[in-house]
Amino acid sequence: MSTTVISNMLEETRQQPETLRRTLERGLRDIRSLELRLKKDPPRLVVIAARGTSDNAAQFGRYLIEITTGIPVSLAAPSIATLYKRGGDRRGVLVIGISQSGESTDTNAVLADGRERGATTLGITNEPASTMAKTAEYTLLVRAGKEKSVAATKTYTGQLMALYLLAAALGGGVRAEQLRQIPDRVDAVLRREAAIAETTERYRFMNGTVIVGRGLNYANALEFGLKLMETCYVLAERFSGADLLHGPIAMVERGFPVFVFAPGGPTWPSISAVLRQLNELKADMLVITGRGNKHARGLGRTIELPPLPAAPGIPDLYTPIPYIIPAQLFAAHLARIKGFDPDRPRTLSKITRTM
Amino acid sequence: MSTTVISNMLEETRQQPETLRRTLERGLRDIRSLELRLKKDPPRLVVIAARGTSDNAAQFGRYLIEITTGIPVSLAAPSIATLYKRGGDRRGVLVIGISQSGESTDTNAVLADGRERGATTLGITNEPASTMAKTAEYTLLVRAGKEKSVAATKTYTGQLMALYLLAAALGGGVRAEQLRQIPDRVDAVLRREAAIAETTERYRFMNGTVIVGRGLNYANALEFGLKLMETCYVLAERFSGADLLHGPIAMVERGFPVFVFAPGGPTWPSISAVLRQLNELKADMLVITGRGNKHARGLGRTIELPPLPAAPGIPDLYTPIPYIIPAQLFAAHLARIKGFDPDRPRTLSKITRTM
Repeated sequence: MSTTVISNMLEETRQQPETLRRTLERGLRDIRSLELRLKKDPPRLVVIAARGTSDNAAQFGRYLIEITTGIPVSLAAPSIATLYKRGGDRRGVLVIGISQSGESTDTNAVLADGRERGATTLGITNEPASTMAKTAEYTLLVRAGKEKSVAATKTYTGQLMALYLLAAALGGGVRAEQLRQIPDRVDAVLRREAAIAETTERYRFMNGTVIVGRGLNYANALEFGLKLMETCYVLAERFSGADLLHGPIAMVERGFPVFVFAPGGPTWPSISAVLRQLNELKADMLVITGRGNKHARGLGRTIELPPLPAAPGIPDLYTPIPYIIPAQLFAAHLARIKGFDPDRPRTLSKITRTM
Repeated sequence: MSTTVISNMLEETRQQPETLRRTLERGLRDIRSLELRLKKDPPRLVVIAARGTSDNAAQFGRYLIEITTGIPVSLAAPSIATLYKRGGDRRGVLVIGISQSGESTDTNAVLADGRERGATTLGITNEPASTMAKTAEYTLLVRAGKEKSVAATKTYTGQLMALYLLAAALGGGVRAEQLRQIPDRVDAVLRREAAIAETTERYRFMNGTVIVGRGLNYANALEFGLKLMETCYVLAERFSGADLLHGPIAMVERGFPVFVFAPGGPTWPSISAVLRQLNELKADMLVITGRGNKHARGLGRTIELPPLPAAPGIPDLYTPIPYIIPAQLFAAHLARIKGFDPDRPRTLSKITRTM
């Protein structure tokens, strides 16, 4: 594969300022009927079902909703409905399914099962004519346009944007004027593509890594790892900072590559403790952090992001979408350097149907 | 390290018939007051907090409780309480913490936070005098005796046994007479140690692997992977069968080592589809399955377990404890073969305190 060929994955990564703006503006209107319903009947529990990249978005939704609204969230184990055929009363529960194609069979089965058991149901999908849009009572569309690459990029950030809209509808204090700043910040990160592509060169022979995130950015660690696994065939373990310390850190030796999402805010004390411990082990670290984070600079290589919209009390609230952009660029360029086609990972197809 | 030295990990693995019997018999009495309380006020939601091996037990608890009782379960993201300092009303919620030492700081913080917010709280721990036992309203003790190895074995299966007792207390149809058969089956698996140790020899140079489980045995995939990471320094990715197909399977190429938990029952159609796909990719498979599973034999090496206690409607209900035993033996012997001390993994100590 020549370096002059632009993969769909890279092209779609670059489209995100536009796809995010569209998803946000149309979504602000589309969510109104669901918002009225949720204000009338606030859910006692939110359940989110998804697979693959969408499941990483679900992880973000989990933190976002619990942090901004206090409503408990459970990430569904679809097999309980699909294989064990079990469940209970779900009245007062909001069941959410997330799927790019809207055709993820077990995610749709959780929605159908929830609806039958009395839950309010919401589908978040890129496809208005999908089975998901027909199965759920409410649909919130990701307006990403067709995603040609099997490796999802713009639909992931679109799903995150849809979840911000949902948190707002649940009374979570997420502000439209702050969300409107996100696409511009994404644009600012995209302008660093050349530098990120250059950084990627030194990872040409990496075949295993550990990726760390925490709180609202834990989902990004999961998503970056998934991208490295499916497009670069790199064995990428993903951990919350705390879980890494409970065992798996034993794997990390001198020169072992580790990637860390390290925004400022509530998770910084925990993440910086992990950074220090990894530094003592002489791990090879790349830290995605805020501009001018001198502490991180002292511990490893950094990719530094521009200032993000303010969020009183939750300073990292609006970091997850901009923070995944360098990781998407990294994976797309590393796949190219390794000679793989990120648009068509071996073994995979765009729609995965599982029981 | 000489092959004649028996690690504490191996010794504690062998103690499990006894530690399980003790945990079960004492637990049947100890749980009575909690059982009365739960019968009077059935919880609308169960939240489980834990880290490391205990978090893998929590995953088992999640499936067990949802499958046997229909009560929704959420695995806590401790940072929401410890770092973001957020939460909501938890009246009617049963919050469970699981920790071998009872000193896992963030797990205890979730219990304290839950109690403050109106939840019923339960600690499952090996240490009656621990902070956890003082923090939670109810305590269910794992009677494993002192665990000297940093790599947990007997406390993991003890936690699983405690969770069966809890499911019974929640009206989940788990039967004491069936639980009483489990220690004997564990004993039968332990008698295969020599054969398992021999199998381990061919994995001497393995440095990366994928481990697959589904449903009630998904927790075992997580736990086997954790054991391989912390005692053998093997990069071990863990997936539900469905999640593997949604991306990460792209990593698997000819000769790539994969371990699969494949009991009969509801998950078999899904797991056998994964086995077939891995077989097409010519992965190197070791399948932990039921005795005489000819289908599995045709697709890879097998470790075959004796018949387990019957459970009408949920044939795999009592498989998780016996199924983890060969994996514990495998990790302990592989560590020995690789020349590592599984009792003292580099970087780790027995009690991990994280925020």
